[in-house]
Amino acid sequence: MTDAAAAIAAAAQRCSNIGRWGPDDVLGTLNHITDADRVAAARLVTRGRTFSLSLPYSADGPQRGWRRRTNPVHTMLDTGLDAEHGNQGFPHGLGGADDVIAMPLQCSTHWDGLGHIFDHGRAWNGRRASAVVTSEGDAVTGIETVRGLISGRGVLLDVGRVVGGGELPDGFAITEQHLLDTAGAHGIDVRRGDLVCVRTGRLTRARSEGWGEYAGGPSPGLSFGTLDWLHRNEIAGIATDTWGCEVRPNEFDDAFQPLHQVAIPHIGLFLGEMWNLDELAEDCAADSTYAFWLTAAPIPVTGAVGAPVNPVAVK
Amino acid sequence: MTDAAAAIAAAAQRCSNIGRWGPDDVLGTLNHITDADRVAAARLVTRGRTFSLSLPYSADGPQRGWRRRTNPVHTMLDTGLDAEHGNQGFPHGLGGADDVIAMPLQCSTHWDGLGHIFDHGRAWNGRRASAVVTSEGDAVTGIETVRGLISGRGVLLDVGRVVGGGELPDGFAITEQHLLDTAGAHGIDVRRGDLVCVRTGRLTRARSEGWGEYAGGPSPGLSFGTLDWLHRNEIAGIATDTWGCEVRPNEFDDAFQPLHQVAIPHIGLFLGEMWNLDELAEDCAADSTYAFWLTAAPIPVTGAVGAPVNPVAVK
Amino acid sequence: MTDAAAAIAAAAQRCSNIGRWGPDDVLGTLNHITDADRVAAARLVTRGRTFSLSLPYSADGPQRGWRRRTNPVHTMLDTGLDAEHGNQGFPHGLGGADDVIAMPLQCSTHWDGLGHIFDHGRAWNGRRASAVVTSEGDAVTGIETVRGLISGRGVLLDVGRVVGGGELPDGFAITEQHLLDTAGAHGIDVRRGDLVCVRTGRLTRARSEGWGEYAGGPSPGLSFGTLDWLHRNEIAGIATDTWGCEVRPNEFDDAFQPLHQVAIPHIGLFLGEMWNLDELAEDCAADSTYAFWLTAAPIPVTGAVGAPVNPVAVK
Amino acid sequence: MTDAAAAIAAAAQRCSNIGRWGPDDVLGTLNHITDADRVAAARLVTRGRTFSLSLPYSADGPQRGWRRRTNPVHTMLDTGLDAEHGNQGFPHGLGGADDVIAMPLQCSTHWDGLGHIFDHGRAWNGRRASAVVTSEGDAVTGIETVRGLISGRGVLLDVGRVVGGGELPDGFAITEQHLLDTAGAHGIDVRRGDLVCVRTGRLTRARSEGWGEYAGGPSPGLSFGTLDWLHRNEIAGIATDTWGCEVRPNEFDDAFQPLHQVAIPHIGLFLGEMWNLDELAEDCAADSTYAFWLTAAPIPVTGAVGAPVNPVAVK
Repeated sequence: MTDAAAAIAAAAQRCSNIGRWGPDDVLGTLNHITDADRVAAARLVTRGRTFSLSLPYSADGPQRGWRRRTNPVHTMLDTGLDAEHGNQGFPHGLGGADDVIAMPLQCSTHWDGLGHIFDHGRAWNGRRASAVVTSEGDAVTGIETVRGLISGRGVLLDVGRVVGGGELPDGFAITEQHLLDTAGAHGIDVRRGDLVCVRTGRLTRARSEGWGEYAGGPSPGLSFGTLDWLHRNEIAGIATDTWGCEVRPNEFDDAFQPLHQVAIPHIGLFLGEMWNLDELAEDCAADSTYAFWLTAAPIPVTGAVGAPVNPVAVK
Repeated sequence: MTDAAAAIAAAAQRCSNIGRWGPDDVLGTLNHITDADRVAAARLVTRGRTFSLSLPYSADGPQRGWRRRTNPVHTMLDTGLDAEHGNQGFPHGLGGADDVIAMPLQCSTHWDGLGHIFDHGRAWNGRRASAVVTSEGDAVTGIETVRGLISGRGVLLDVGRVVGGGELPDGFAITEQHLLDTAGAHGIDVRRGDLVCVRTGRLTRARSEGWGEYAGGPSPGLSFGTLDWLHRNEIAGIATDTWGCEVRPNEFDDAFQPLHQVAIPHIGLFLGEMWNLDELAEDCAADSTYAFWLTAAPIPVTGAVGAPVNPVAVK
Repeated sequence: MTDAAAAIAAAAQRCSNIGRWGPDDVLGTLNHITDADRVAAARLVTRGRTFSLSLPYSADGPQRGWRRRTNPVHTMLDTGLDAEHGNQGFPHGLGGADDVIAMPLQCSTHWDGLGHIFDHGRAWNGRRASAVVTSEGDAVTGIETVRGLISGRGVLLDVGRVVGGGELPDGFAITEQHLLDTAGAHGIDVRRGDLVCVRTGRLTRARSEGWGEYAGGPSPGLSFGTLDWLHRNEIAGIATDTWGCEVRPNEFDDAFQPLHQVAIPHIGLFLGEMWNLDELAEDCAADSTYAFWLTAAPIPVTGAVGAPVNPVAVK
Repeated sequence: MTDAAAAIAAAAQRCSNIGRWGPDDVLGTLNHITDADRVAAARLVTRGRTFSLSLPYSADGPQRGWRRRTNPVHTMLDTGLDAEHGNQGFPHGLGGADDVIAMPLQCSTHWDGLGHIFDHGRAWNGRRASAVVTSEGDAVTGIETVRGLISGRGVLLDVGRVVGGGELPDGFAITEQHLLDTAGAHGIDVRRGDLVCVRTGRLTRARSEGWGEYAGGPSPGLSFGTLDWLHRNEIAGIATDTWGCEVRPNEFDDAFQPLHQVAIPHIGLFLGEMWNLDELAEDCAADSTYAFWLTAAPIPVTGAVGAPVNPVAVK
């Protein structure tokens, strides 16, 4: 076994939640959110201001075709031009526009579902990958199984600002200490059931520089070493403003997304990617309040292993 | 002018919000929600229980091809079978699944955007339809313009239960009086800025009988006569468990969705369609509480005239 | 082993071409066409009249969603309305229209590729199904491998006319004797390398009655017993005017397309489905000439197991 | 009027076929092919060797998103892995694979339909653009109208080889004299009804260098000045191995595809783009025979303004 393989296996063992919520569990770390947590989190709404944390879904998006991930193709079935032209066949002056989209489910702001990543042929909770995701989709942990659950206390850790002075460079590995330092600087604690949003500043940079390799290339992100923190804190989910949550290049030679390999099948953790945290981060810096009500309800595509989401934070 | 045309024109004049929020407005009735409303609405979270109001997005959905609206086609780019088979090229035992979707934006639970319907070639706020929606999409009121705004106080009016004893029959026109009676029975008032959910029971019936003509066919729904109520109450949006909000067949001879024709271009009202209100309705009946926190954040497809949404109510 | 299973296994053994063209073969029965055959077939062009044997690709097509096969969704990226409206940004009065399609590759007139059907986990030429077709497509016998080869002598066997007096009823199994009788009535012989077109009249009926269950339902078609004839005659391909070539319901209890199960993985035979043979059949009946030049070039989608084709016959 | 506008208008007037085949014509220059031409052309088949002139349709194709033209997204509905896994529900060991595609109709080897380009709001034969192509597609000259007609005598003019010594550089404008010189070097004449294939070598270069800006960028191609030759020779169609037939940058300041602007709406000429002529060109050079039987049958997508095609030449 290589050092990388050994490290992954060790972390998987240390951080495992497999079986924790019974053999039939499909909710993973969403089990950490209680109804009481939501009642408390709703009290964080004190100003009533809302923030969409979603990028646009657009042909001008970040995808460059890596792993056949393309940008959305949005086309019209009917338009205002057709309405004015009068070829729509409606009575009394009614006109309409309709539209269609074709897109990968992980092309823009999204949740990884629990069927998205496997470790040695095993999906979340110890199931065989082949028993979960076939060509018909994810028959067990499809994103529809959690369609109503992803709301509660959100916290922002603006590591880009605290540690990077605004933005972290590609390849920067965010460690547990960086997360603790950031929370400390914000005066906030991370609690069981939290939906943690980590801002690296990578998206901010893409906006000024152009997408480049934003989707699939080098990036700041979570260090493999944060797995224990993610597990120990019993958070419900974690989302970043990068394409893949973890630092790229990864910290092991010849590795690919080793944090995913532990986080999804062993911790059962929900990972959010390409979230737009900039406007929220500006506001948090301004009012020094880094906790908020967060609803991040995935579009419940039956059997999906990833899902578009428009997360909305309310302070 | 036919009677129908005259009635539509008269309602459009009576209920017009055109210009109310300035010539550049793209928010329509979402202007009715204030930050203070959201603070108050958040206080409605007392039990912490959540309800997804979205149907699944699935090949088994309600569409039958009417106006080229089809059900989603969800396909896999990679599966657990590929991961086990070992043809994915990842190191250290990592495996992955990815997926793709192609669908009309109004195929399942959705919001109508303000560019969805025109009246005599005019879109919301008096703009020419051709100046708003071309083959490149809605350049003015694309759904992305309201991506962070649709959250606040939700109220359920279970007309199906109160008036219909469970379900209303196709062709049943819900009048203002029915709405008032239902609110009265629930002991709830409808306020400025509310997101009103009207349950007819049509979806419940589709579940027991099969989709049939659920999407595009006969249906209970709002009477044309409710436009004044919708306008006068200054609600932010209204959603139903039917495909098209209003009663079908429509109440005028040779008419097609005349309520839409006034509600969208003249009132600037956001209409939600094919919302799944059954589980929420059961709960409301059980605890006699018909108001709740509601987040209904559309996927912000740039230039879209309709948008998938997974509305989440929290009580 | 059931009777059906035994019959399938026996036919597979009798009719096997596995290994006949070496272990690396990807062409199957297209090996039967020689260049000399094509030279001879070109001499069949005596009048210069052409016949497209393709159905339209349209939203009004035959699919009803069976096995997630839908009709094409064809949408416009730009239209003449946009060109006239002047929002396209081209100089000097240039305007343009562009379009997009989303469709199953077997939704209308198509070839089955050799990766389309497996027998007990084996694809054409004895390969493991998993070694041929993964989520990345058919890496071995993708339709692009035969992109230039499917042209030569076409013959029409109008069984519908000869045996059925125009059209055969659903469930009618076309036997070897029916094929021989039809060829006899036409005064034509079937030769090695031929592309055989069998008209049942099922499509003609769908045109008068509506699609109904045309795609996936009951149908006249080839009897399982014709496998020996298909193999012995060393034809290059066979196409019908039905959705699935063979008779439906199939002739065994609880069977599904058993002729496919032998024809594709064991014979390596190319099957054409939903071909429009009516206009050609009218002409053949009129001039008593049932052989012609045929080009049926599949769109070479890399890795495809099925392929749209517009076959063109020339007499 | 600018010089460019004047030149375009003058060429449009000189080369117009508008009305030549009556007011209802939808065939344009395909009217130039007679049945007798096809009989003669079939006699060009002397060796029986076939050549597919199509590029693969693949995610690795040339598109880079220009004008929302993307590469095909080909996904599987079922695979050999599923068949081996046994989750398909078929009896007796049958397994299957199915697939789906989403793509622009002009993403790879294709024909431009007559509804693809307009001049000052006019489509082929003088029709208003808006009367031809709306959001519902091309209701008049959709590619299905010519589905059986595009076969006949093909000729290759290998300008890349004769004039360029193999490949022409980007920006090289092929003039009438270059075409005449090439035909002369080949010992071939261009005749009424021919389908002319012009090889520039641009595709050959893309293969060695990578796609780069192959689709939409600088390119060798036909000079605007060849319009008279295209018109005078009464050819049925012309195809090149480049993305847009004509030289890029265009020869007028601030122009965009001015040859298209005359060729399609005024001449009614069928233009083929991104054809793969290399293998055919090698063969023609080897046997000094530049005429052949050509079938280039577009997939008849109803209402399409462009169409995938797998052209097959037979010598």
